[in-house]
Amino acid sequence: MKKLLFTPGPLSTSDTVKQAMLEDMGSRDYVFMNSIKEIRDGLLHLAHVSKAEGYECVIVQGSGTFGIESVVGSVVGASDVLAVLANGAYGERIIKMASIQKMNCLPLRFDEDGIVTPEATAKFLEEHPEITHVACIHSETTTGLFNPIKEIGAVCKKFNKVFIVDAMSSFGGVELDMKEYNIDFLVSSSNKCIEGVPGFAFALCKKSELIKAKGQGRSLSLDLYDQWAGLEANGQFRFTPPTLSIMAFRQAMRELEAEGGIKGREKRYRENKSVLDAGMAKLGFKLYLKPEIQGHIITSFLYPKDPNFNFERFYKKLNDRGFIIYPGKLSKADAFRIGNIGQIFPDDVRALILAIKEVSAEDNIQIAD
Amino acid sequence: MKKLLFTPGPLSTSDTVKQAMLEDMGSRDYVFMNSIKEIRDGLLHLAHVSKAEGYECVIVQGSGTFGIESVVGSVVGASDVLAVLANGAYGERIIKMASIQKMNCLPLRFDEDGIVTPEATAKFLEEHPEITHVACIHSETTTGLFNPIKEIGAVCKKFNKVFIVDAMSSFGGVELDMKEYNIDFLVSSSNKCIEGVPGFAFALCKKSELIKAKGQGRSLSLDLYDQWAGLEANGQFRFTPPTLSIMAFRQAMRELEAEGGIKGREKRYRENKSVLDAGMAKLGFKLYLKPEIQGHIITSFLYPKDPNFNFERFYKKLNDRGFIIYPGKLSKADAFRIGNIGQIFPDDVRALILAIKEVSAEDNIQIAD
Repeated sequence: MKKLLFTPGPLSTSDTVKQAMLEDMGSRDYVFMNSIKEIRDGLLHLAHVSKAEGYECVIVQGSGTFGIESVVGSVVGASDVLAVLANGAYGERIIKMASIQKMNCLPLRFDEDGIVTPEATAKFLEEHPEITHVACIHSETTTGLFNPIKEIGAVCKKFNKVFIVDAMSSFGGVELDMKEYNIDFLVSSSNKCIEGVPGFAFALCKKSELIKAKGQGRSLSLDLYDQWAGLEANGQFRFTPPTLSIMAFRQAMRELEAEGGIKGREKRYRENKSVLDAGMAKLGFKLYLKPEIQGHIITSFLYPKDPNFNFERFYKKLNDRGFIIYPGKLSKADAFRIGNIGQIFPDDVRALILAIKEVSAEDNIQIAD
Repeated sequence: MKKLLFTPGPLSTSDTVKQAMLEDMGSRDYVFMNSIKEIRDGLLHLAHVSKAEGYECVIVQGSGTFGIESVVGSVVGASDVLAVLANGAYGERIIKMASIQKMNCLPLRFDEDGIVTPEATAKFLEEHPEITHVACIHSETTTGLFNPIKEIGAVCKKFNKVFIVDAMSSFGGVELDMKEYNIDFLVSSSNKCIEGVPGFAFALCKKSELIKAKGQGRSLSLDLYDQWAGLEANGQFRFTPPTLSIMAFRQAMRELEAEGGIKGREKRYRENKSVLDAGMAKLGFKLYLKPEIQGHIITSFLYPKDPNFNFERFYKKLNDRGFIIYPGKLSKADAFRIGNIGQIFPDDVRALILAIKEVSAEDNIQIAD
């Protein structure tokens, strides 16, 4: 049975994206090297910047976290100080990698159900002039909220800090202008809103900041500058590239374009989200977040209080019907998550709602309090 | 046109291996988690060890180099000393990663056209009792030679050192018993002799040594112990796994089994190598290495001295005919490389030889001196 993934990725991709992996590809093959170039230029274009304007795209093998660690571990120098604005598991992950890599790191923590505020950020930067870099998550997948990165970027600009944005689960599904937002480094991965398959992460970088990372990398594999220099030198990866994931991604980029670019895709995701919210509300499910800070990528729903609700059973029964949802990751509340991204359309969301209704009836779950 | 890859990987894979990637897969899906388990157990089995005997398999996202860096960066502690036995670019790569990660590292260098000798290794370990770990490449892809890892393993055992083997391009294509060879950590990747697609590396580990790496990792993404602990805890990756590469690899493992395991595959690769050697010799090409140290994975052929030979043109003309060969990487001689691994059969090698003959005639290249 074909299953639909209502997750934050790996997600459902089109058949044509997967079929792009059916031909073996040498890592020096010109078709492959042209694909890398098409992808690198195309990703900058999606962020409304270009090489001519001083921006560069670096592809890093591995998952999104590898991409984040490549950026953080390469651009924050030994005497630099990184502020991490954290309101969920992904912010905490950056704090953890900074600690493992023995960086100077100052965390600024916010409640999980509230956004990172520009005001608190400004105050923090004022109190800590030693800070050189600021990292923040855009769409915090822990809860599904959107942090106001445009406003935080303005604060970083005012205080002259390098701004690193983890836009893992949002890039490609939310319109965003890197220059206008004052973002110096933006990281996402192949298996998110561009709707490719897993295999690599990518960093969009302001070149004037990227070149400062030369010789600073704390790992050979994850050295962002060297990876970029390698790609620039001969169009190739330094180490074996995920050839077929790259070919799938090229196809995914073309399909994004055909959908009307990020604008068109965002429209579909927002529609998915509306159908989901209306359907789940009608069934009696409650949102974890206040709607005004909830993003349209992934949504946390509180567990029904009825003891008949058992998440593992609920998950499995939906899975058996071909719908894969996602467990929660909250520290203070029990919730599950439903993603709107990937090759999922409003009718798929309606089918999911119907399945949830059936499973709830079958298990005699009283959803509303 | 379908192209055949005579490279050290990414290499030619079967259609069925690639077709295993045509279904989206959630990272928590039980089919996927069972695949991870099947792969981890199966890889240990290929090395003639098992969990019951105290060995563990850890899968790491990224290329083979990521796997090597995960092992070296995690198991060599701050006060440990790593000896690297180097006779090519891959040994040098380990020295470079040790340097970037500020490890205590003592390189022992050998000529590129000679093997790492057990005698010199023993002498070095005797002179440097501070050494705790020894790293060596099995099949040095730079040239194609096989280092005598069994004999070097015996020396490591005698001196009680932890032995790390980079078997990137050989594992799956050469019979090898991890316990008998006294190997503590063996690293290879998905796109080598198991004949999967790129996406991840794997480390086979002696558990008693692996658990010493707890808390020692120098990077979050590449922390070998944490990655293992995560896989053990819930069967899942800590960070997004390369789901479809994993599904392709499971299929590749099954096809390896059907070919008669490593024994059957080694037989085919050796046949490829015989056909290649005989055909290239007949055309007048000369081997870079002495035959007794040449492995059957990849072979370096010296450039013909005739000025009509231009590698880029030669490469492109073969490419246009559907045969992808590999450039050289030698520091002291001009050579190109031809691999025997992947879904390549003796008749494919014969077709390559014929193409080389045609291209040489077309460009009026006098091959023999």
